[in-house]
Amino acid sequence: MSQVEPYSRKVYYYETDKMSIVHHSNYIRMFEEARLDLMDKCGIDYAQIESLGIIMPVLEVSCKYVKSLFYGETFSVEVEVAAFNGIKMGFKYKIYAVERNELVTTGESWHCFLDNETRTPVSLKKRAPQVFEEMDRIIKEKL
Amino acid sequence: MSQVEPYSRKVYYYETDKMSIVHHSNYIRMFEEARLDLMDKCGIDYAQIESLGIIMPVLEVSCKYVKSLFYGETFSVEVEVAAFNGIKMGFKYKIYAVERNELVTTGESWHCFLDNETRTPVSLKKRAPQVFEEMDRIIKEKL
Amino acid sequence: MSQVEPYSRKVYYYETDKMSIVHHSNYIRMFEEARLDLMDKCGIDYAQIESLGIIMPVLEVSCKYVKSLFYGETFSVEVEVAAFNGIKMGFKYKIYAVERNELVTTGESWHCFLDNETRTPVSLKKRAPQVFEEMDRIIKEKL
Amino acid sequence: MSQVEPYSRKVYYYETDKMSIVHHSNYIRMFEEARLDLMDKCGIDYAQIESLGIIMPVLEVSCKYVKSLFYGETFSVEVEVAAFNGIKMGFKYKIYAVERNELVTTGESWHCFLDNETRTPVSLKKRAPQVFEEMDRIIKEKL
Repeated sequence: MSQVEPYSRKVYYYETDKMSIVHHSNYIRMFEEARLDLMDKCGIDYAQIESLGIIMPVLEVSCKYVKSLFYGETFSVEVEVAAFNGIKMGFKYKIYAVERNELVTTGESWHCFLDNETRTPVSLKKRAPQVFEEMDRIIKEKL
Repeated sequence: MSQVEPYSRKVYYYETDKMSIVHHSNYIRMFEEARLDLMDKCGIDYAQIESLGIIMPVLEVSCKYVKSLFYGETFSVEVEVAAFNGIKMGFKYKIYAVERNELVTTGESWHCFLDNETRTPVSLKKRAPQVFEEMDRIIKEKL
Repeated sequence: MSQVEPYSRKVYYYETDKMSIVHHSNYIRMFEEARLDLMDKCGIDYAQIESLGIIMPVLEVSCKYVKSLFYGETFSVEVEVAAFNGIKMGFKYKIYAVERNELVTTGESWHCFLDNETRTPVSLKKRAPQVFEEMDRIIKEKL
Repeated sequence: MSQVEPYSRKVYYYETDKMSIVHHSNYIRMFEEARLDLMDKCGIDYAQIESLGIIMPVLEVSCKYVKSLFYGETFSVEVEVAAFNGIKMGFKYKIYAVERNELVTTGESWHCFLDNETRTPVSLKKRAPQVFEEMDRIIKEKL
């Protein structure tokens, strides 16, 4: 498991729907928040990656809803790097309701690296070797 | 394939993100729009199901992003009922960029039926047999 | 009043919150949908304006909530151009619950024109005179 | 000014749009986050108010966009209670880009108190006098 402190925040009112629970699409957004927070905490600056003309779109996402989250509750997200080779990158997520100490959601997301101009796949290893080495080192050491 | 006309609309500006494409979480919302539109077109009134004290939360969702959608484009969603037995219900989705006639996304969602008060699973067949028979008939005939 | 047919669609489930009504932030998004739809119906292509390197950000928005909108309902939006001089542009909105024939929301939005690179104000009249003349003519004739 | 620490967080990637700035509708959501956070920090539990069958919908909202917020930036929200009499409640907001120390947005929101069943206005003073007194005291002392 990651040595990085899990991402955590309260549920927002506008994230609920008329079932009085967090709308299922918002967990995909929580995954993104937690993924970018993890990268940030590890010293991988996604804004800097984008400034190099590289974007990291989502290839695939999946989510299993075990329990519901409610307004007023705090959740935390454990993120794990499932794979990284500079061409593809995978993350696994577990969302917990903190006060109840219950697992509420699990999921995965898979990403590639694209040139922002041409929208064609790039190998981070070739295109931005320093960023690749740095990410590779951090993932091996901390994640 | 379904005999029902696919759901279709334009991409909204607020659905884009700074990659200039539709944010990946919004496809999960498009699935919901298309799913409820399908039910509506078939004469299955979800608001009525909820008024019987039954909700239909999402158990699982997955999405593969084949191409991107852009602001100004029209998309259509083909929805198929993958399974229905009154306890669980599955849908499969294909989203197309209409002007380009290209498949942009595929996905699935799985749902159960819950009592809205107790949040425990119910069998639609037992709890609301008329709604079950009607849905079952429609799905067999049209979907 | 505008000669253009009002923008209309059904409320989406994900637009509701735990009060079982459309979340108030979503009306700001409905204003945007209706504003861009109006421009589109008039032959003013906002995607084309952006492709000229000009963006039209929001300077100010306000919204009064008279009644609530519910899932399952259809709403329509009447949009009026309140002002246009190529430097600033204002819109007024009225949202109606179609089935109830009731006014649910009124609002306004004010916009300027910016160079997308420098993010400094531009006069559409000087920067893109053809687009300005076209918009001016359409607004005078139709809106 | 309020004695309560301003609400603060990072901009999420999904809050941006294709202008590469935070979409204007999201500031209305930030207002809500900050408003409920303020109430929470003061010991006013909005979830508890709702559990008494009282909701606090928005009557009116307005927002002026002075500057833009970008992905990667941190913002803070200063909230002030503009008025409170148990029938109506007003809030004023100032959003700052923390790293730039720049004011980016100002706004207001106005709310009433409704019975959640009947959706008719209630006076908090009559309906929930303890909550009213507590809120009144906190607002006078701290806000």
